[in-house]
Amino acid sequence: MSRSIGQKRWAIAEGYIPGTSHGPQPQMTSHETACLLNASDKEANVQITIFYSDREPVGPYRVKVPPRRTLHVRFNDLTDPEPIPRDTEYASVIEADVPIVVQHTRLDSRQAENALFSTVAYADAD
Amino acid sequence: MSRSIGQKRWAIAEGYIPGTSHGPQPQMTSHETACLLNASDKEANVQITIFYSDREPVGPYRVKVPPRRTLHVRFNDLTDPEPIPRDTEYASVIEADVPIVVQHTRLDSRQAENALFSTVAYADAD
Amino acid sequence: MSRSIGQKRWAIAEGYIPGTSHGPQPQMTSHETACLLNASDKEANVQITIFYSDREPVGPYRVKVPPRRTLHVRFNDLTDPEPIPRDTEYASVIEADVPIVVQHTRLDSRQAENALFSTVAYADAD
Amino acid sequence: MSRSIGQKRWAIAEGYIPGTSHGPQPQMTSHETACLLNASDKEANVQITIFYSDREPVGPYRVKVPPRRTLHVRFNDLTDPEPIPRDTEYASVIEADVPIVVQHTRLDSRQAENALFSTVAYADAD
Repeated sequence: MSRSIGQKRWAIAEGYIPGTSHGPQPQMTSHETACLLNASDKEANVQITIFYSDREPVGPYRVKVPPRRTLHVRFNDLTDPEPIPRDTEYASVIEADVPIVVQHTRLDSRQAENALFSTVAYADAD
Repeated sequence: MSRSIGQKRWAIAEGYIPGTSHGPQPQMTSHETACLLNASDKEANVQITIFYSDREPVGPYRVKVPPRRTLHVRFNDLTDPEPIPRDTEYASVIEADVPIVVQHTRLDSRQAENALFSTVAYADAD
Repeated sequence: MSRSIGQKRWAIAEGYIPGTSHGPQPQMTSHETACLLNASDKEANVQITIFYSDREPVGPYRVKVPPRRTLHVRFNDLTDPEPIPRDTEYASVIEADVPIVVQHTRLDSRQAENALFSTVAYADAD
Repeated sequence: MSRSIGQKRWAIAEGYIPGTSHGPQPQMTSHETACLLNASDKEANVQITIFYSDREPVGPYRVKVPPRRTLHVRFNDLTDPEPIPRDTEYASVIEADVPIVVQHTRLDSRQAENALFSTVAYADAD
């Protein structure tokens, strides 16, 4: 039996998918990822809402994380209800029905040598 | 109806706008950004105070984030009450009248290949 | 006498050991590290569990951190019960019997110029 | 009058000063920084203790942050009681007598193109 860890509500205030890439695909494609860990014994039903600077939020995008699994969600790959435009500022709120942990990573390969960052997302304490 | 997430008071202890850049403008201009997410249904009135190593704090700089919107504030672009000097160490405190989430990102393009970091800012728990 | 700091349970949702490297070994080998700080006066018995996207968790991997010491654990070097495959998405839960602090770092040297990130891991508040 | 923000006790589990550098000095020297923000109206007396993997902690290193000021402390520059060796894994605990905010940044210029990361340090909640 696995013990859950995390929170049910998270936010990532920084979002931006660079429009161009260098290097072999798909590893070196410029991308943004929300890494989700579901350490619990129940499936996690996750809803992602995307916030923009100049229009109403879009979502929810729905993904499932099986019990005791991790899922690395590329924002690039979200299509339903609509794809996230490139070179556009956005933010996201991630909600699950069991505690999960969310970490936010970007690989930016617009230039020949890639840049990379990662940060634990903001966890709503309640 | 959207549900708010975050805190009303944040701090970024690291601040530094590199004085030079390589690559196409403005995407690849060396810059520092505070990404603000206002997931609530009320406009967020945000005040940013800049702290220096050798003189009194400057501010507040005022920005508004509409309800259910994100705003990526480039410190480079702040001008009122005064621009932030380049190549100078600073820190910031960010205060809002509704809960927001703050993430801090720098793109450093002083060299030919850019470097990038991002971290969730420090949230005052109370 | 040293005073402990930290928590007993941590998670890192992002995990990925790049399969290739450039530059002098072992410093510039692509790697992922969990940096553990045990500021207490007792030895820390640490258990690391690795979560995957498509199979059951593996572990625990066991490491010890002596009192008042830091240990930088390269995930690349874990072998018992089994090595972590390269170019594979994973996540980890790190548990100790005394409070510790965990920070997560990756050096990615797949390209000629290395990329680097680091973030404090997610601490379970209870 | 300025309002304090932060905590009195912080930890950085990841520490490593690369032994070599490329590019103009001192901006592009490989370095590690603890960025300290003292938003309060009282001087902050700060004590830094350095933890190693194979010997007893060293410190305290003492720095002062005036009221309403930020101080970016380069670990490279700490000399009393002793310099921190290069290419050596360490960790640090940072304690102040007023609330401060601590952010941890590294610039790694071992290769021609620099890598950069930053993360808010771990704050002891009590």
